[in-house]
Amino acid sequence: MNSACYLDWNATTPLRTEARAAMIDAMDVVGNPSSVHAPGRAAKALLERARAQVAAALGAEGQDVIFTSGATEAAALVLAGQGYHCAGVEHDAVRSWCVEDLAVDRAGRITIADPGRACVQLANSETGVIQDLPEGLAVSDLTQGFGKMPFAFNWLGLTAGIVSAHKLGGPKGIGALIVKRGTDIAAQLKGGGQEMGRRAGTENLIGIAGFGAAAQAASRDLEAGIWENVEKLRSVLENAIADRAKDTIFVGNESRRLPNTSCFITPGWKGETQVMQMDLGGFAVSAGSACSSGKVRASHALQAMGFDAEAGACALRVSLGPDTRQEDVMRFAEHWLKCEGKHRARRG
Amino acid sequence: MNSACYLDWNATTPLRTEARAAMIDAMDVVGNPSSVHAPGRAAKALLERARAQVAAALGAEGQDVIFTSGATEAAALVLAGQGYHCAGVEHDAVRSWCVEDLAVDRAGRITIADPGRACVQLANSETGVIQDLPEGLAVSDLTQGFGKMPFAFNWLGLTAGIVSAHKLGGPKGIGALIVKRGTDIAAQLKGGGQEMGRRAGTENLIGIAGFGAAAQAASRDLEAGIWENVEKLRSVLENAIADRAKDTIFVGNESRRLPNTSCFITPGWKGETQVMQMDLGGFAVSAGSACSSGKVRASHALQAMGFDAEAGACALRVSLGPDTRQEDVMRFAEHWLKCEGKHRARRG
Repeated sequence: MNSACYLDWNATTPLRTEARAAMIDAMDVVGNPSSVHAPGRAAKALLERARAQVAAALGAEGQDVIFTSGATEAAALVLAGQGYHCAGVEHDAVRSWCVEDLAVDRAGRITIADPGRACVQLANSETGVIQDLPEGLAVSDLTQGFGKMPFAFNWLGLTAGIVSAHKLGGPKGIGALIVKRGTDIAAQLKGGGQEMGRRAGTENLIGIAGFGAAAQAASRDLEAGIWENVEKLRSVLENAIADRAKDTIFVGNESRRLPNTSCFITPGWKGETQVMQMDLGGFAVSAGSACSSGKVRASHALQAMGFDAEAGACALRVSLGPDTRQEDVMRFAEHWLKCEGKHRARRG
Repeated sequence: MNSACYLDWNATTPLRTEARAAMIDAMDVVGNPSSVHAPGRAAKALLERARAQVAAALGAEGQDVIFTSGATEAAALVLAGQGYHCAGVEHDAVRSWCVEDLAVDRAGRITIADPGRACVQLANSETGVIQDLPEGLAVSDLTQGFGKMPFAFNWLGLTAGIVSAHKLGGPKGIGALIVKRGTDIAAQLKGGGQEMGRRAGTENLIGIAGFGAAAQAASRDLEAGIWENVEKLRSVLENAIADRAKDTIFVGNESRRLPNTSCFITPGWKGETQVMQMDLGGFAVSAGSACSSGKVRASHALQAMGFDAEAGACALRVSLGPDTRQEDVMRFAEHWLKCEGKHRARRG
């Protein structure tokens, strides 16, 4: 385990104990789920058990769960070539396939003109802002909401939803597209007949077993109320910062947000610099989403909300998890405020 | 571990001890390889170590290893939209994207007209037949050869090669496309900048760690000569069968073959029936490739070699592995011959 204090749970999460155990068990399953013999059938049974676990955790019983290599592939599978509309706050994996013309206000709320032709996220990875999804929405990226907030796919009125295992304590490299049964989905990976002909390729059995177990555990923890404490810690953090850093703006805090996410802009202090200064202090946080964090640039999502490029480049995202302790948050706030003080002193 | 005697190593292999250990270690790595902070850098280091292991095992140092969710995705990444030519003995994941017009003879050898526009497998999954790959070949599916026979990507003169982890003791759901450095590959999964912009999506870190370790171990075992014993066991098997089942034809045995693969046609006895009868006896074998084994039909590969549909439907594939013991092979031959005797008696 890395000794850094990990406050970047929206980028990826530590593997849950339950997922770890399920994956280690799955390592002993020898067969290919497509093989008809006994070892093949055992592998197939494991696959279908995990599929049922993911469906149950999502409130998507009776729908089709198509396992993919992650949310990025699930997005490509449902969005490529469809010309759906989206807003600039969506993840790049969604934006890549959509017409980006839906308006977003300063609070992060998306105006959805034609739900049947739109892809709208349930919650934003950078700001945590939660959208009210309209009935009849074509597609939603449920990745950040899944496991952190209660919802049921079967009540959302969606045609398709995108999810990922590694945002809720499962392994990286596995996700799913959830579709209303009967929806037409053309395979992009062709070859074998896996996933009912919608996604060829031998299944990532160990990863899928981990996804199933993680989804089940996340769902149980959500019901048990573990995020209420996380939300309190987020308030502790934001209050500590707001008390002393008067120029700092908390993005989207007038909207309903995920309980764990805080995004704040400190004018003139680059997010990338903040990430490095926090890293030196032993804290893992992020400027924007992890997938684009190799590229030093202003957050596209924040600009879509009406912040200018300068402000968008000065944002920091802190995302907490169930394992985060009050002590971690206090130590982080202290270190951040010390650095912020120096930053202010330099600016004069 | 399933108690069946597993003789279907070309479909998928048991996880190697080394892969298992590497995967369990990787479970403790918290970060996202795209994150710039310490936990992210630790994840990135793990990813790059596995990449170097796979490259070294392939003799592809200095080339680009693009991790994918398996050989199927690697095939789609390099073949889709290219109009390459292939033969009917290729895997469905290759055939789906190619013009299938290369000739194959009864011994399984492919005639390659224009190497620069062709995709040719190194070894066939059903028959084990090995191709002589011509210099300047565009793409080769190396999946079945990798780990079972010596070759170096850097000496094959290929532009791109397709590989998979679970055929050499790694986990299912991870593979790679190996390309000569400088080759233009357009991403099909879009979003984040992972894999040098050629394959978006958070990396399957645990699977990749397993792939690296498995590739390294497979390469070491190959060098140590473990396949020589496997080849002897294959001869034991084929001799035992040939001695008593005089109508049975061994496909491709006049060609150079993988040391572990035996494919034989017993006229009038359906491969699917044989698979079920062997399964009842506790032996896991296959009729054709695993990916298509859900579908009961004649082997496309055998038909491409000139066998008729009737013969192609009566093939059985037995594929051995380093763990296979002489006793397993003898017990299998005994059971198969007993069933074959009954089949012959029924035919009269």
